[in-house]
Amino acid sequence: MNTSMATSPHTNLLHNTIFNNPTKSKTNLSPFSFKPISIKCSTQSQTTHNTPLQTQSQERVFNFAAGPATLPENVLLKAQSQLYNWNKSGMSVMEMSHRGKEFLSIIQKAESDLRTLLQIPSEYSVLFLQGGATTQFAAVPLNLCNPQDTVDYIVTGSWGDKAFKEAQKYCNPKVIWSGKSEKYTKIPSFDDFEQNPDAKFLHICANETIHGVEFKDVNYPNPKNGILIADMSSNFCSKPVDVSKFGVIYAGAQKNVGPSGVTIVIIRKDLIGNAQSFTPVMLDYKIHDENNSLYNTPPCYGIYMCGLVFEDLLEQGGLKEVEKNNKKKAEILFDAIDGSNGFYRCPVEKSVRSLMNVPFTLEKQELESEFIKEAAKEKMVQLKGHRSVGGMRASIYNAMPLAGVEKLVAFMKDFQAKHG
Amino acid sequence: MNTSMATSPHTNLLHNTIFNNPTKSKTNLSPFSFKPISIKCSTQSQTTHNTPLQTQSQERVFNFAAGPATLPENVLLKAQSQLYNWNKSGMSVMEMSHRGKEFLSIIQKAESDLRTLLQIPSEYSVLFLQGGATTQFAAVPLNLCNPQDTVDYIVTGSWGDKAFKEAQKYCNPKVIWSGKSEKYTKIPSFDDFEQNPDAKFLHICANETIHGVEFKDVNYPNPKNGILIADMSSNFCSKPVDVSKFGVIYAGAQKNVGPSGVTIVIIRKDLIGNAQSFTPVMLDYKIHDENNSLYNTPPCYGIYMCGLVFEDLLEQGGLKEVEKNNKKKAEILFDAIDGSNGFYRCPVEKSVRSLMNVPFTLEKQELESEFIKEAAKEKMVQLKGHRSVGGMRASIYNAMPLAGVEKLVAFMKDFQAKHG
Repeated sequence: MNTSMATSPHTNLLHNTIFNNPTKSKTNLSPFSFKPISIKCSTQSQTTHNTPLQTQSQERVFNFAAGPATLPENVLLKAQSQLYNWNKSGMSVMEMSHRGKEFLSIIQKAESDLRTLLQIPSEYSVLFLQGGATTQFAAVPLNLCNPQDTVDYIVTGSWGDKAFKEAQKYCNPKVIWSGKSEKYTKIPSFDDFEQNPDAKFLHICANETIHGVEFKDVNYPNPKNGILIADMSSNFCSKPVDVSKFGVIYAGAQKNVGPSGVTIVIIRKDLIGNAQSFTPVMLDYKIHDENNSLYNTPPCYGIYMCGLVFEDLLEQGGLKEVEKNNKKKAEILFDAIDGSNGFYRCPVEKSVRSLMNVPFTLEKQELESEFIKEAAKEKMVQLKGHRSVGGMRASIYNAMPLAGVEKLVAFMKDFQAKHG
Repeated sequence: MNTSMATSPHTNLLHNTIFNNPTKSKTNLSPFSFKPISIKCSTQSQTTHNTPLQTQSQERVFNFAAGPATLPENVLLKAQSQLYNWNKSGMSVMEMSHRGKEFLSIIQKAESDLRTLLQIPSEYSVLFLQGGATTQFAAVPLNLCNPQDTVDYIVTGSWGDKAFKEAQKYCNPKVIWSGKSEKYTKIPSFDDFEQNPDAKFLHICANETIHGVEFKDVNYPNPKNGILIADMSSNFCSKPVDVSKFGVIYAGAQKNVGPSGVTIVIIRKDLIGNAQSFTPVMLDYKIHDENNSLYNTPPCYGIYMCGLVFEDLLEQGGLKEVEKNNKKKAEILFDAIDGSNGFYRCPVEKSVRSLMNVPFTLEKQELESEFIKEAAKEKMVQLKGHRSVGGMRASIYNAMPLAGVEKLVAFMKDFQAKHG
């Protein structure tokens, strides 16, 4: 297997386009109306392959990490071109006052593009916060219930379990279904669980990053009472979602939409304003909503990066197109696993397999470390499964190119031929 | 006044060095052992001034924002050169797993360099967190006292006041001195306040960003009982500090050491482990200490940027040198104000004037908006005072070059000559 597979023709084209040929980039390829650095090397042909920047692109790995995770190459190149001087402002986005007109234009566009992508109804607020989903595990019950209130949790993996445990500090949470005894490989149907009639909300983790189980549109539960709340950290913006089904959606950015350090909360406005009295001000949705996420200094650069990703997702045709690509990637990977005659195995029930995180094991467990080592030599990295479950995991978020999954599948077949 | 003043010869030199002449950069100028992008344009002289990158540098403004704030130019250029492919890893720092060896090397070096800079004793932990100082306003009392405990706050400005108010949710805080009646222009001497004999801690804001008053080494109060805690957000790493005087030091990064989204906590280890039972897990120092700031996904890119800044501060000779430069910058600015025969005025008592944030007013208040507008035309931006106090404010953090302050002072004299 040739390592040059790591570089798609598109990759070099992008480099040429953004760094050597700004005019073309605007009309033909680049989705952006931005000012590239446009380094001109007048004696060099635009198709030459010997500039160091192109070498860098050839050296790019396929990164299967579960998060922080691979970002779109064109987004990174745009960020690089703008890092030192954003849009002729004379400063980096990292240096901008969060109350200045430059950054306000960035955060407002990010919100607007996200609203378009997810078709977020106007009665929902969008907040850009800090602290990861783990902070929301506390913020959700602190904002939505009183200490004596009962709330329901469906636990389909480690993250749902962590959310439940944190909620115990602030209300009376009940696990109404847990997949633990089946090693978190399933998602329940409505008949499998009984909701508490007075539960203020029903919480799910829409995609379990470690175990690779994902709620599909058809199996979102309907809360009898109260509202549905979802941690969507690892499948946020990977497919269309009917936001109106949810009271709160929250997501760490570092899987599908940006770097770590930004947490996005989408919340129905009528749910805001009832935080428990000892809620830290930074966990009170009301404060952030009233201040358009600018109560204190937000994670500006991360929000900017999310904005570039949202722009890119829109440019790709929106979330329906994104979902199509994600389905195709997942399909060829699961086909390779399921068609391996048991050499590779995915423990997750087929109907609820995640399109984002694909855990798999080798029949011959002793080969796993070799698999990971050999893959790394071929520039496919971070394939080791989470320490709590072992095996392998390929996270194939939005920004993982089809070429990356194709290369992995080719490698898997090759590896099986050698060791099968 | 010529706008070309915005570009120092050093600026162009840096650009040439990093982008066109990596060999020289290593030996002569650049403090880093890094791999520059090294775009080679073989027919162009290295001293040419017509590449677009150099134009960008000429367009750089002097940014007097209070935070997020100006960053060192060489740090930005290094970040730009590494954004797309860090250290031949084949990925951006933004894409790296926080548990991978690449990022671990980054966060460990950042901590180690910070420990060297501030000579942090081994019995202190260093945590890289999220949520800004405002989150620490809650975390400090949640971790260090019980609900019935008395704690003391000296309030020398808006931020100390906010910290006090947040603490009311978690313990029994007392304001033992407030500068409010004198519009926060002073810092008390020991004789001016009486500590509660059983106070678990004494909290100060070491530098008030809005009001421009700063505790100097000689006027840190000694807590009778308990420990001293300081919010150092806006003077962190601007001068040497005897860390052993403090139980906890905390600081948002976005003034002197990085972009927004990172909060650094330096805490004496024996103070860790006593959080109140309903403390959100993300506000519990014990969790972060036990997990080396990797309990959940940290703000990786921000930590990386802080690391670059720490490296740069060490390269400058450490905090004593940094303090010298900061004193010089502040001196020429205060001299200009004090020597203006009242045309400009700084309300802060001389002995406690901040080296970082210099608020000033015009005798003829009606000229203030013109001052700000004319300065912006000369590429000096963000000089407007905080909305709560009006007037002007020049924030002259570590990364503000002497040339920036010199240009501001020249402009002020020019403006006075026109309107005096």
